[in-house]
Amino acid sequence: MKLFKKIDEVRRQVEEWRAEGLTVGLVPTMGYLHEGHASLIRAAARENDRVAVSVFVNPTQFGPTEDLARYPRDIERDKAVCAANGAHLIFNPEPEEMYPGGFCCYIDMSDGPKEGLCGASRPVHFSGVCTVVAKLLNIVLPDRAYFGQKDAQQLAVVRRMVSDLNITVEIVGCPIVREEDGLAMSSRNRYLNGDERRAALCLSRGLEAGRLLIEAGETAPEAVIAAVRGHIEAEPLARIDYTAVVHPGTVRPQSVIEGPVMCAVAVYIGATRLIDNFIIE
Amino acid sequence: MKLFKKIDEVRRQVEEWRAEGLTVGLVPTMGYLHEGHASLIRAAARENDRVAVSVFVNPTQFGPTEDLARYPRDIERDKAVCAANGAHLIFNPEPEEMYPGGFCCYIDMSDGPKEGLCGASRPVHFSGVCTVVAKLLNIVLPDRAYFGQKDAQQLAVVRRMVSDLNITVEIVGCPIVREEDGLAMSSRNRYLNGDERRAALCLSRGLEAGRLLIEAGETAPEAVIAAVRGHIEAEPLARIDYTAVVHPGTVRPQSVIEGPVMCAVAVYIGATRLIDNFIIE
Repeated sequence: MKLFKKIDEVRRQVEEWRAEGLTVGLVPTMGYLHEGHASLIRAAARENDRVAVSVFVNPTQFGPTEDLARYPRDIERDKAVCAANGAHLIFNPEPEEMYPGGFCCYIDMSDGPKEGLCGASRPVHFSGVCTVVAKLLNIVLPDRAYFGQKDAQQLAVVRRMVSDLNITVEIVGCPIVREEDGLAMSSRNRYLNGDERRAALCLSRGLEAGRLLIEAGETAPEAVIAAVRGHIEAEPLARIDYTAVVHPGTVRPQSVIEGPVMCAVAVYIGATRLIDNFIIE
Repeated sequence: MKLFKKIDEVRRQVEEWRAEGLTVGLVPTMGYLHEGHASLIRAAARENDRVAVSVFVNPTQFGPTEDLARYPRDIERDKAVCAANGAHLIFNPEPEEMYPGGFCCYIDMSDGPKEGLCGASRPVHFSGVCTVVAKLLNIVLPDRAYFGQKDAQQLAVVRRMVSDLNITVEIVGCPIVREEDGLAMSSRNRYLNGDERRAALCLSRGLEAGRLLIEAGETAPEAVIAAVRGHIEAEPLARIDYTAVVHPGTVRPQSVIEGPVMCAVAVYIGATRLIDNFIIE
């Protein structure tokens, strides 16, 4: 497995693979890889001849008051996770390699799936996501790119961008991977102290209650949201950013639950913002 | 020569060419082709095995009060110009093919070469240009794409976008083609009546005066601008939008003329807005 810091090195390697007729899967990450990322890498390795993993804490998707500076980083650990799960290449650029002086071009959405949910509380987030994902797709030119369902709105936004800008890549969404007790895996879980780690279970517990209601036939989003919120509000360390029942593709609020539905939450546990969701197809 | 209305048809044709190892040049146009476009098609035919010309009056690069509805269109004439100059494919989509329902993803610049000049009087213009050019590049995946130097700021913006978003294509700028009397060729010249057509010569005349000054050693942009404006203001049918002396790459105003310089003007002749420029390297 090779680690490259430069765009041109990645391009040369991928061109060699292409010349040999090999397919390429890309797993874009911000590093500090956990079992959720590992499952993406394994999926990419199953479906492609070669797998590239990008490890880049992308500054443009963080707001000015967010956790860019303290976002966890451990490239040695990331290398081990990549190697153990079938990656062939890590792209780990410096910010200056991705955003050199004079950089000024951004991709954004005028409305659509970036509205509401995380887009409401993180106004620059999805523009940064779109921009860096487009850059990575243009650098690696993969056949397929893999994203976790935990960041469900990100997945919807990336699918919309790829469709709107006619980018030739298949976007593959992969299921949320959870700790044994139900907490969705996230690099940000490491911010949690012991009490917060226990409190963080209110997200998955609340969502599970919502899922059971829908599976029992509930069609009113308000009833589902009330059930989810009940579990989260019972937790003193939790502060809700949003709870929402939306269409998983458009991320628009549903007035009646019928057909595919996503229930998503964002909750502060202490100072740490966590997200989680479930989708019923 | 084939004419395609659908993205998938273009993709299939270009894939066939690629499979044969042929290189592809793209000439993006809004149609109503003139000798300036023809020179781009010939340049593309010289430097590539196959040439695709897009003919699409792109609605997203027109402001709400601009000339989208009356922009001249004549696809039969365009087909003849394309065939006569070496094109192999015309892509002539309907607006709904390029911007289907739910479309919401745009490319824009936070500052950089889109600031000032046409960006000041046409606030949505370059976002529309970037978005449609990125789409066309993603659909055709050309080796090279050809743009006229008449739209010099557009060329600078496209170069910046291709660099910032790591798009693998060579952007080729081609010289302005002029009528015998000096008027820069433009599809919008057809809006001019007889008096306006004569009045429109003030652009090239003013720019020529500016060029002579710089070639004679003038280094003060104000002196060059004054010379250019003098010629244009002497024309009663002309109303200046801007006259500017900028760096041709960054499109930033120059305080002293040294090294590469672009002098650019936008002028209303009656209701018709015309642009022209020269670059000294």
